[in-house]
This record gives sequence, structure tokens and C-alpha cells, in this order.
Amino acid sequence: MSPKPKTQNLKSLSIIKIGGNIIDNPTELSQFLSDFSKIEGYKILVHGGGKSATKMAESIGLVPQMIDGRRITDADMLEVVVMIYAGQINKNIVAQLQANSANAMGFSGADGNLIQSDKRNDATINYGFVGDVKKVNTNLLETLLSNGIVPVFCAITHDGKGQLLNTNADTIASELAIALSKVFDITLNYCFEKPGVLYDAEDDSSVIENINQELYSKLKAQKAIHSGMIPKLDNCFNSLSKGVQKIKIGHHRMLQDARAICTSIEL
Amino acid sequence: MSPKPKTQNLKSLSIIKIGGNIIDNPTELSQFLSDFSKIEGYKILVHGGGKSATKMAESIGLVPQMIDGRRITDADMLEVVVMIYAGQINKNIVAQLQANSANAMGFSGADGNLIQSDKRNDATINYGFVGDVKKVNTNLLETLLSNGIVPVFCAITHDGKGQLLNTNADTIASELAIALSKVFDITLNYCFEKPGVLYDAEDDSSVIENINQELYSKLKAQKAIHSGMIPKLDNCFNSLSKGVQKIKIGHHRMLQDARAICTSIEL
Repeated sequence: MSPKPKTQNLKSLSIIKIGGNIIDNPTELSQFLSDFSKIEGYKILVHGGGKSATKMAESIGLVPQMIDGRRITDADMLEVVVMIYAGQINKNIVAQLQANSANAMGFSGADGNLIQSDKRNDATINYGFVGDVKKVNTNLLETLLSNGIVPVFCAITHDGKGQLLNTNADTIASELAIALSKVFDITLNYCFEKPGVLYDAEDDSSVIENINQELYSKLKAQKAIHSGMIPKLDNCFNSLSKGVQKIKIGHHRMLQDARAICTSIEL
Repeated sequence: MSPKPKTQNLKSLSIIKIGGNIIDNPTELSQFLSDFSKIEGYKILVHGGGKSATKMAESIGLVPQMIDGRRITDADMLEVVVMIYAGQINKNIVAQLQANSANAMGFSGADGNLIQSDKRNDATINYGFVGDVKKVNTNLLETLLSNGIVPVFCAITHDGKGQLLNTNADTIASELAIALSKVFDITLNYCFEKPGVLYDAEDDSSVIENINQELYSKLKAQKAIHSGMIPKLDNCFNSLSKGVQKIKIGHHRMLQDARAICTSIEL
């Protein structure tokens, strides 16, 4: 008798990450939240920030700090991202999901010590108050999910010593997926405004329906895949290699339409 | 045999409300959070807003809307209070409590549908996005508490239809206490910068150590008790009449020092 596949006895969990372009468009966001709330079974939402944090920073006179082209989170900017991500965006999403009958609960990583990070310690650039995920509180997340809660994470974590930290939302989705893949059969979906990873960034019909590491290396070398898509795909391959069962990138219509074209990531 | 007192089989729950003056003073807040985290047994924290929301509103050019001397929460002001109360203040408190080994989780009323409100419908004044508490999700709060969670509430609720609402923090503390008094033996503490309710607002040594409705009526008539203390005490008597077991008002030193002078409220 052949061995049972590893995931056979695990319950399904969908982890959906949405990017800033969905958050900045109220009609898109409302449609997404309606689709998200209809996903059956356990689910977790991770949201990015959108443009409100930058707009708020500008309106109170903060000047974005950049070193070598990298955005720095100084103390003032941290205050802004905490209030916008964990306050404004997170609570409005939670209230809308409640109206869609999903029992959403909004979290930063500090809440329930759900995601603890280390402040980034880079030898060349001082990123400021930026955290790299260290530990996910899997037990508490399991308890919340089994009580019907739909966790909604913003991209803020903490160091366990009282300091909040700005953390990349793609990474949060990926680290949650890795940690929870021990106890759930995970589908990790990165939703954004495009239908998937494209051969040609200008042509929405050029979706790469399946991408593995070999094709990824080739397309990177050809510069067909570049800029923001690189850390996103690196996150995906890292997650798959650490046990996440299934990853897709595409427009959020894929959540409700199984025939919608999108990109599946494979090792 | 005389009947057992009603509360004998109930577990103890401390509900602590802190006001804006503690929040605006980082040293006070840090001392309070250390004291709060040492309270044994189940506990819930409710925090007000402090001056940051007003400062933020001013810095982005909002003009406070007042009608007949009452502050109105228009759509812009709601955005500000949500980001400051549920974002900045709530998450910083949660991170600090985590550093004090309390497994804090920060909530608005929308999270887990923990506190649902009705938008205030006043015949004479349109208060804007202000909510009056309708329902507390007692079951979910019990589940969270029994899993070692320390809920931290900001003064934001929702209407269940996607709308966040600004809600008085004293009222939130009082409504939580009333709802949870069915299943817990409640001590409700209102902590602020004064040692208690004072006979003479200018004299901190004039603490009224016990106040009942009769004395309250008398002191109100004499105008010894006035302005902000009136709704606070009305909340207290309302809570006691609806089953809350014990209420105290005073400086937060009363949390760790049983001999500290404060005001006990009795029916």
C-alpha cells in the first residue's frame, strides 16, 4: 500500500494576502471582502498598507527617509504606519467583514504575541523600526480558528520587549503559512491588481500559469521578471520549500472562480 | 443554613478603565501597565483616548465640530479617532503589556463582534458617528479569558453593518462589566489622575471614601460633584443596579496597594 499523502488528515486553511492597490480602491476592496468572506473553511487575511500611510506622513510634514533607495522606518514613520495599518485599515476591514458575516478579528503581531520579530540588524543599512519574523504563535491561532474567528493581520509585529516593528506583509503571509503548514493543509494566495505573474508586465494576457524555480531563474536572467515580483516569488519558493502545500498569485477573482487564470507556484 | 451569596461560585474578573491623562504621560502609563499586569486572575483593560486624537486632527487641519457645546464625530474625525485609539494607543499598550508578560490582545468592538452599538439617534443633536452599546459578545470574551488572553479595548465599536462608531470609554467599561457580571464576580475600577471622587475638586485629600446614591444626590445638589464626574458616577450606579458586584474610582496605585485611599461606590 502506498503511503498516504502528508496532507490527507489536515484541515484546509486559506491564507490570503491583499496588496495596497486593492486597499486604495473602495469598490475593489468591498468586492474582495465579499469574495473572501465566502471562502469555505478556515481562513486568514493579511493586508498591506496602500497609499494612506504615505499620504498621512506627508500631511503631517514627515519627509520619507531613504538610504540607498531603501525606505527607512524612523520613529515618526512607525507611529504613522501603526495608526494607519493597525488602526484605520485593519478596523475598517474587520467591520466590513463582520457585515459580510465573517467573524473577523484584527491583529498586529503584538496581539496575543501572535507574531514576534527581531529588529532588523543589517551591517550596511539601518532600516530603523523594521522587524524580521522570528516566531508565530501557532497554538493560539489554532484556538482562534477553531472558535470560528477569521484573523485579519496588518503588517505590524513586535519584539516582545515593548517595541512595535514595521514588517513586510508578503513575508507575514508567508511566515504564517510556513508555521501553520504543520497543522493545516495551506493554500496561500497573493492577490493583487494583475491576473498573475506576467511574461510581459505590459500585457495582462501574458500570465505565466505555472512557474517553478527553473523557469523563475530563466525569466529573472532575461529580466522578464524584475523589481517587486522578485522578493514576492522568493517568498513563495521559500514557503514551498518549508512545507506550504499550495501557492497562487493573481487577481482576487480566483478566490471565487476556479477557472480564473492565475499563476501557480511549484518548486 | 443561610443561602450562599450569589457570587460565591463565580470566578473573579477585574475590569480596569484608564483615562486620557494616564495615556498622555508615558511614565505614568508605563507604571500603570506594570501594576495592571500584576493583577491576579482574569482582567480586561479599557482605555480612553488622551489628547493625541485632538492633536492629530489639528495637525491635518480638521476643525472640531461642536453643536450646543457637544463634540460631534463627523466622518473625518471618526477616521482620526479610529487610527489613534485602535491603532497608535491600543497597539502600543498591547506591546508594552506583552513585555510585562500579560498576554494582551487589543480590540475594537468590531473585532470578533465583541461590542455592537447603535448609531446614536438623538432628536435634537446629530452626534455623527457615535455609538451606544447594544450587545456584548460575552461567550467569545469568556473563551478568550479562559485561554489566558488579556483583552484591551479601545473606545471604538461598530454597528454590525460595516460602520465603526466612536463610543465613550467609561460606558464601554460599564457595559462590559454589566454583561460579564452574569458569569464573573466583577470588580470595576475607574483609574484616573486623582485619588478618588473629591468633596473639593481642588483638594486631593478630600476623597469621598464611600458614596451611595443618597450622598451622590446631595453632593450634586450642592454642586460639589459636577461636570465630568456626573456621567462617570451615573455609569457606576447604573452598573451596580444591573448586577456589577464592586466599583471603585481612584488613582491606579489602588490596583497594587490595598490600603490606598479611593472611592467605593455603593447603591
